[in-house]
Amino acid sequence: MERKIYLKKQDVDMALKLYKDRLYEAGFFTPRTETLPTIKALGRVLAKSVYANKSVPTYNSAAMDGIFVRSCDTVGATKTNPKILTQGQFKFVNTGNVLEPPFDAVIMIENLHIVDDNHIQIFESVPPFHNIRLVGEDLCEKDMIFTRYHRLKAYDLSLLLASGVLEVEVIKKMNVLVIPTGDEVVPPESIVYDGLIPETNSTLIANYLKELDVTVHIHPPVQDCFESIVSVVSQAISCYDMVLINAGSSAGSFDYSYHVLSKLGQVIAHGLNIRPGKPTILALVNDKPVIGLPGYPGSCFVVLEQIVKPIVFEKYKTLPSNEGIVEAISTRRIFSSISEDEIIRVSLSKINDKYVFVPLKRGAATMEALTKMDGTVIVPKGTEVLDEGQKVIVKTCKSIEEIDKNILFVGSNDPLISILADLIKAKDFTLNLNIANVGSMGGLMAIAKGYAHIGGIHLLDLDCGEYNLPYVRKYLKNFVLVKFIKRNQGLIVQKSNPKGIKALEDLTREDIRFVNRQKASGTRILLDYHLSKLGIDTSQISGYDDEEFTHINLALKIKKGLADAGLGIASVAQIMDLDFIPLFWEEYDLLVLPEFTKDYRFQLIMNLILSEEFRNSALTWQGYDLSDAGIVIRGDDID
Amino acid sequence: MERKIYLKKQDVDMALKLYKDRLYEAGFFTPRTETLPTIKALGRVLAKSVYANKSVPTYNSAAMDGIFVRSCDTVGATKTNPKILTQGQFKFVNTGNVLEPPFDAVIMIENLHIVDDNHIQIFESVPPFHNIRLVGEDLCEKDMIFTRYHRLKAYDLSLLLASGVLEVEVIKKMNVLVIPTGDEVVPPESIVYDGLIPETNSTLIANYLKELDVTVHIHPPVQDCFESIVSVVSQAISCYDMVLINAGSSAGSFDYSYHVLSKLGQVIAHGLNIRPGKPTILALVNDKPVIGLPGYPGSCFVVLEQIVKPIVFEKYKTLPSNEGIVEAISTRRIFSSISEDEIIRVSLSKINDKYVFVPLKRGAATMEALTKMDGTVIVPKGTEVLDEGQKVIVKTCKSIEEIDKNILFVGSNDPLISILADLIKAKDFTLNLNIANVGSMGGLMAIAKGYAHIGGIHLLDLDCGEYNLPYVRKYLKNFVLVKFIKRNQGLIVQKSNPKGIKALEDLTREDIRFVNRQKASGTRILLDYHLSKLGIDTSQISGYDDEEFTHINLALKIKKGLADAGLGIASVAQIMDLDFIPLFWEEYDLLVLPEFTKDYRFQLIMNLILSEEFRNSALTWQGYDLSDAGIVIRGDDID
Repeated sequence: MERKIYLKKQDVDMALKLYKDRLYEAGFFTPRTETLPTIKALGRVLAKSVYANKSVPTYNSAAMDGIFVRSCDTVGATKTNPKILTQGQFKFVNTGNVLEPPFDAVIMIENLHIVDDNHIQIFESVPPFHNIRLVGEDLCEKDMIFTRYHRLKAYDLSLLLASGVLEVEVIKKMNVLVIPTGDEVVPPESIVYDGLIPETNSTLIANYLKELDVTVHIHPPVQDCFESIVSVVSQAISCYDMVLINAGSSAGSFDYSYHVLSKLGQVIAHGLNIRPGKPTILALVNDKPVIGLPGYPGSCFVVLEQIVKPIVFEKYKTLPSNEGIVEAISTRRIFSSISEDEIIRVSLSKINDKYVFVPLKRGAATMEALTKMDGTVIVPKGTEVLDEGQKVIVKTCKSIEEIDKNILFVGSNDPLISILADLIKAKDFTLNLNIANVGSMGGLMAIAKGYAHIGGIHLLDLDCGEYNLPYVRKYLKNFVLVKFIKRNQGLIVQKSNPKGIKALEDLTREDIRFVNRQKASGTRILLDYHLSKLGIDTSQISGYDDEEFTHINLALKIKKGLADAGLGIASVAQIMDLDFIPLFWEEYDLLVLPEFTKDYRFQLIMNLILSEEFRNSALTWQGYDLSDAGIVIRGDDID
Repeated sequence: MERKIYLKKQDVDMALKLYKDRLYEAGFFTPRTETLPTIKALGRVLAKSVYANKSVPTYNSAAMDGIFVRSCDTVGATKTNPKILTQGQFKFVNTGNVLEPPFDAVIMIENLHIVDDNHIQIFESVPPFHNIRLVGEDLCEKDMIFTRYHRLKAYDLSLLLASGVLEVEVIKKMNVLVIPTGDEVVPPESIVYDGLIPETNSTLIANYLKELDVTVHIHPPVQDCFESIVSVVSQAISCYDMVLINAGSSAGSFDYSYHVLSKLGQVIAHGLNIRPGKPTILALVNDKPVIGLPGYPGSCFVVLEQIVKPIVFEKYKTLPSNEGIVEAISTRRIFSSISEDEIIRVSLSKINDKYVFVPLKRGAATMEALTKMDGTVIVPKGTEVLDEGQKVIVKTCKSIEEIDKNILFVGSNDPLISILADLIKAKDFTLNLNIANVGSMGGLMAIAKGYAHIGGIHLLDLDCGEYNLPYVRKYLKNFVLVKFIKRNQGLIVQKSNPKGIKALEDLTREDIRFVNRQKASGTRILLDYHLSKLGIDTSQISGYDDEEFTHINLALKIKKGLADAGLGIASVAQIMDLDFIPLFWEEYDLLVLPEFTKDYRFQLIMNLILSEEFRNSALTWQGYDLSDAGIVIRGDDID
């Protein structure tokens, strides 16, 4: 099969407009309707305007519990000069009872005194129709209740029923087929050797569409074979409103989607000017949309959001209802491609009444960034840099209420921070700890700039050999440092230590491949301090430039045999079932934004740090010492 | 049965806190869990933290389509000085293929030239692991993926599957029973005579809970009988997590809920300090919540929002995700009770970059206000007046995006405005015309104050006998008036005109009961003008003080035999199948906010007014003349 070069890449807005125009011409957006009993129509969209068959209420009735009276009999009654009504002048009624002329008003049960069965004392004079619900008070018969394209909520259904509308004509649900393709994709439970890819995108696509009220079927995976794909698509197209093929929309030698779709119909766009999401195909087959979605989950999600969702909403004639918009400050300098729109997934937090966002992993392949995102930022084509401190619009995928409660932790990485996050959730489910692993210096700078609530740091001062305070004092006049844990740093090596590594000096051995942590991380500073004390030249260490961003990523590299040793903490060696050579105790502390210490969320975290529950969790791991945990050191502006 | 006086009414926050505390003590909020296949867990809440079973990706692989190379073979290649790789130095690969050592990098297909089967020209030198996705790049095995209480979205499911988590432990769905009570409530299709009430609240409650992911069963209506209700509740309580009784929670003679619940369990609160929503009972039976919900739909909705929803979310350990918050200006002076919190349902529009809200009908019984609301405003206890122009927080129940597109029409009422609303929707489903019927003067003042996009007015100047312009000039220097319709005003009377009414003079007859329109409405001004010209004293007209707010409400009153005649428009007489005595042609025009005339939505409305479609719809009704429709009169500041 010939490799296909992309058609000219198109801007997303233009491509979507062109595609929608063509789908309109093809009649795809003409509503198909069905008639449903009103009680079954929750969330459905009305196909045409609806008029009341009956007034609501349909008759004059008591609006309160009490007694029916003739208003003329009540004239003159006051609190100080009550009046007695006798048998025949009143009748006990409950809310909803039909008004019985000549009675024309109701006195509430709370406002009368029952003398005996035949006599009632009243304390007010009431006008005609007092406490009477009148015919049509809520809605008149023949009134238009809803225009077409109204999405029905719970209370809409009850008004329709009350006004005698027992059936409604609604827009039919879309029926979509998802076709996973690829020789290497298998169901997630069938992964037996490297090279097989778990087929997880159909779960993403199907559930995404389910949340948009679309009916979805997933076809069994189809082999990368032109004829098979042609056969599946051409059979499916008559039974479904839309077909989504995943993946094969790029330009690899097994990417058949373009060829299939140009044979069966017409390709409107191949390649979108967006990142991630480029390898996308928009086509029409038999006047229906067939879309080739990219294979990387990040790209797939962006195209679902930018192309598929607008088409579903256009078909349903309605707008999405669960998103918010906030203006937020970028905590990083972000470089983006000048020639493409880029959708960046971000976590959002509110710090001192301002929203700040942290960009998550940007690769198209990352799923984790999707699951951690609070919203997305668009860096438009033509913008190369989003500066640190710049304000931009963030489209949220959570409620603002939920985002307002996020606590942003930035800094060095330790498994106990995840444990803390889980215990915070256990204490108050409305709180989230957003964790950004950027190393100790990153944590310190985030607090200095007001870009985080809490920073996690373990920074060894190379002159005095003391931890954290010297660094903090250098950058901050006012600070609150909470002593957290002492932890054991050492060499993480293969199980049973086959290469007999004993100390840092062994790292220069020719048979040893090292894996390092990133620059400005506390562990890197610690390593460099000791290497320099020992007089070891870093160029002698093979793998010194091979950097990982977290302890667990470093350990994974050793576990997979891609490295022999790395400096890291004991708990991670234990988690990954590797050997550990203890070398140094270091102090890992929490630097807290001073304003945040007045927040109830800070108090909750402090209580947790001091709790038996947290201490017991921490001490199930090797290499932690919590004897100082919870001690607070405040720095004041005393210079 | 003895009437029950309310326990001391409690503030909602206090009552909810007390109730939740008691439910916590009773163990109700302790999560009950179940294990589900991950693919079935959309929208469910994790009961405990989840760790990755496998790294994502699990092996090193090609990140792009292209060729595997050894990075050392590429050294020195540039665009101007390309290099040729020969058989054995490269291998064609697709994204996802396992890295095969000694190959250690990928060159993208777009960046190479295939000379022949054995020779490939490359134009770049690549470092090791270039375009390689490394093990654990997305997620490392043993990493905590989610803390407990995370609500699973579509992409969360695919990450769980990819990391080998095929099953998850989630919080069980709540199982709720709704018990409608009352001798007079029947299914909506069974209404045969006045006095029967359509049972629509169970539809409201059940569908409201369904949207919160709760399983709901509706019990057949139970008679107002102490023993029956005791029997149903005591049988149900062991099978359900929560029971909602509707209604019978007030103090009427058939309101048994309080007595039933104090017999079977413990009542925590009876009567809430909120409007609407007062007649509410919060009780525990067998350590489970049983709530007596008020019978009026507006009250019922408020208690669902303020009490039931927080309990469901507390049980699910998660927050709602589809609401927004905006600050908006009140377009009216609103009086509220100083002793209660009041929840006001409002429509929201954005006018000249500011949000304004219009309060909807405030009665507890109104369903229409629920169906028309864009959000709610809380007027707290202790606040008696919300001033016109005051800024308050509005909690929206629609997306801000949708609200931003609302067009606010304020003014006099005509059925053609609903037709226009429906046609606007037909042209662009993202737009809503919010209609507030407040009479012509209300429409004029709303435009003068910037509280509406469009005002609908028919105001007769009593001095010169001209319509609209004299009034508009009095209040506005800059204005845009769009001529809309001429319409026939006359007397609406019973079918076949049994009382032989011919002219306004007949209204003083003793056998004729009149129904009027509200003060400052155009129709009222028109009536008063002609009565005064004829020298008729309004005190001679029986029913002159009986006011209705719309033409259709006025006609309904006549239709129901509650009045014999009223001044109104021909089309409404036709809709309601009543007789009509034509008297005057009047001019009904649209006064438009000048800034709005630059908006595409205004252009869309102008095009509609001039369209055949609108004209044909209008002319199916009697008494309209559209010959001037669409003419624009602008007033400039030329004084």
